[in-house]
Amino acid sequence: MTTLMRAEIEEQPEALRRSLDALLPEVDSLRRLGARTRQVLFVARGSSDNAAVYGRYLCEVRTGRLATLSSPSIATTYRARVELDGVLAVALSQSGRTEEIVETLAWAADCGARTVAITNEADSPLASGAEIALVTQAGAERAVPATKTYTTQLAALAVLGLALSGDDEEFRAALDKVPDAVAALLEPDPALDELAGRLTSVDGLVVSGRGYAYSTALELALKFKEACYLPAEGLSYADLLHGPIAVLDGDTPVLLAAPADGPVLPGLVTLAARARELDSNAYAIGGDAALSAACDATLRGPRLPEFVAPIGLVVPGQLLVESLARRLGIDPDTPRGLRKVTQTDTT
Amino acid sequence: MTTLMRAEIEEQPEALRRSLDALLPEVDSLRRLGARTRQVLFVARGSSDNAAVYGRYLCEVRTGRLATLSSPSIATTYRARVELDGVLAVALSQSGRTEEIVETLAWAADCGARTVAITNEADSPLASGAEIALVTQAGAERAVPATKTYTTQLAALAVLGLALSGDDEEFRAALDKVPDAVAALLEPDPALDELAGRLTSVDGLVVSGRGYAYSTALELALKFKEACYLPAEGLSYADLLHGPIAVLDGDTPVLLAAPADGPVLPGLVTLAARARELDSNAYAIGGDAALSAACDATLRGPRLPEFVAPIGLVVPGQLLVESLARRLGIDPDTPRGLRKVTQTDTT
Repeated sequence: MTTLMRAEIEEQPEALRRSLDALLPEVDSLRRLGARTRQVLFVARGSSDNAAVYGRYLCEVRTGRLATLSSPSIATTYRARVELDGVLAVALSQSGRTEEIVETLAWAADCGARTVAITNEADSPLASGAEIALVTQAGAERAVPATKTYTTQLAALAVLGLALSGDDEEFRAALDKVPDAVAALLEPDPALDELAGRLTSVDGLVVSGRGYAYSTALELALKFKEACYLPAEGLSYADLLHGPIAVLDGDTPVLLAAPADGPVLPGLVTLAARARELDSNAYAIGGDAALSAACDATLRGPRLPEFVAPIGLVVPGQLLVESLARRLGIDPDTPRGLRKVTQTDTT
Repeated sequence: MTTLMRAEIEEQPEALRRSLDALLPEVDSLRRLGARTRQVLFVARGSSDNAAVYGRYLCEVRTGRLATLSSPSIATTYRARVELDGVLAVALSQSGRTEEIVETLAWAADCGARTVAITNEADSPLASGAEIALVTQAGAERAVPATKTYTTQLAALAVLGLALSGDDEEFRAALDKVPDAVAALLEPDPALDELAGRLTSVDGLVVSGRGYAYSTALELALKFKEACYLPAEGLSYADLLHGPIAVLDGDTPVLLAAPADGPVLPGLVTLAARARELDSNAYAIGGDAALSAACDATLRGPRLPEFVAPIGLVVPGQLLVESLARRLGIDPDTPRGLRKVTQTDTT
């Protein structure tokens, strides 16, 4: 029997196509709103926060704007007033109903920020509270772990990046390739079963990436925790080298999320080699031939430029999580400890 | 035999006293430099990055300035140009020699930022490259895991917070109490041995906190990984509730870092209760009677106001890490995988 999670993973090429079609017409209004701001403040939790990490690199590298991930507790717990003139606050919530996020976006507006919402629910408090709402077209997501609502959030962030970078041709061309590149990742990959089998017996997992793909590492670590109950941590390449690499051993391998090219690749090859020197195992999603040669197993990655690659890079990882959960006797559609609309207390 | 790490933990009251004496005279010049800026950008890695998380809450809650943790790869890997006019860049490196940090601070200045360095080495490239250098007086640190260089960094950040908040009396009074409050934490605590014993048999550990004390959770998680090779993750209270709470079970307990009072406490009590509902164990450092009642064991925390509590809150955790490492047969002074001057490639 196919799980809901698996079915929703497979809906992603169409969900991305619909979302890009719906959101690209917003580029002009986003550009006008953004013109009055010099920096971006993302407001998010959980998977949406991992999506914001992608948005952050995109804003800083491609639009020259400093980008910050907010700590909602500044608004909701400490009720501090922060000077936010000239700031574009971008709140992400799949349901559009996470109170903490709705409240923090309202706080940002009150502190002087301009506001954008990214949500899968047009008829939600988050969408109605923002100056511009980017409504993703993932359709209803029934499995508890977010898959298509996550990748469509990334697509919305890419549209925002396109607008703030001045709508360049290279960027539009890269976005056009995304749905087909994601569809190609759904073709059978024999390495998937092998890797899922290897992961059934590990004690823990470190998921690592650098730059744009750091977001993928964080998101996959969260998925392994949520749906496989596996102690998994997402660490940037640099943070991993700064000490925590000591946790890698024969029972705790590293999984690397890597674009097909770009400046982060050589460091990831070095990291895979370091892991194997520690008698640990290194696995990869994506990368190039040098990375595959340095790893014990590799899942195929997307054929996309680095700055949009995270929209595809997470997909083989989603398939891996779904497969591993089933092997561990867990129903990935309804893992323990999770609800669909996340709420944090706002007192 | 006493380890170097233990000896250096015990030097902290004096290291903090010396550092505060040396840095408080810088308040006026910091205030003048800060007056030309509206936001703070922290540049750091590893333990210094955890210190910066404390600095971030301090800046936002007490000085009304947005604060951001930088991604050094934006500067060193992607070589992006980001608009940093009106930004105060604050770089932290204990050695002052981590190339990536030195390079990123120079990049920030080139992009228009004003610059401050926080380092334990007066005669370092980081100190000489900044407009103001806050040189901590921890003395030489010989154990590889940072202890006194970390808490003195927090003290330097508190001095920066004092300067940017307009030098208020309540803040100065709180700082004056820090060295004695830390000394009190070095008195024997019978719960320490008991808790170290319990942790010898766990598979992993989640360390959690919220607000100011989130920095403590991140730093202790790093220490458990570095010095005990224990898969430990630092997660904010809110992020833990948003899904990863599923990793808690009888073999993976949660350790909560909590101030003695303030708005984050009720949520931490709820979290401890949730963990025990999952048949996991909850332990605490600090907190109040309600938190102790909700936990299986509690280490004594500092008697300090919440906004300076992290300077003390990490200390019982350092003692716990040192004790656990020895019980696990690891020499905490020289764990595998770590060097004292951290370097990340800068290509």
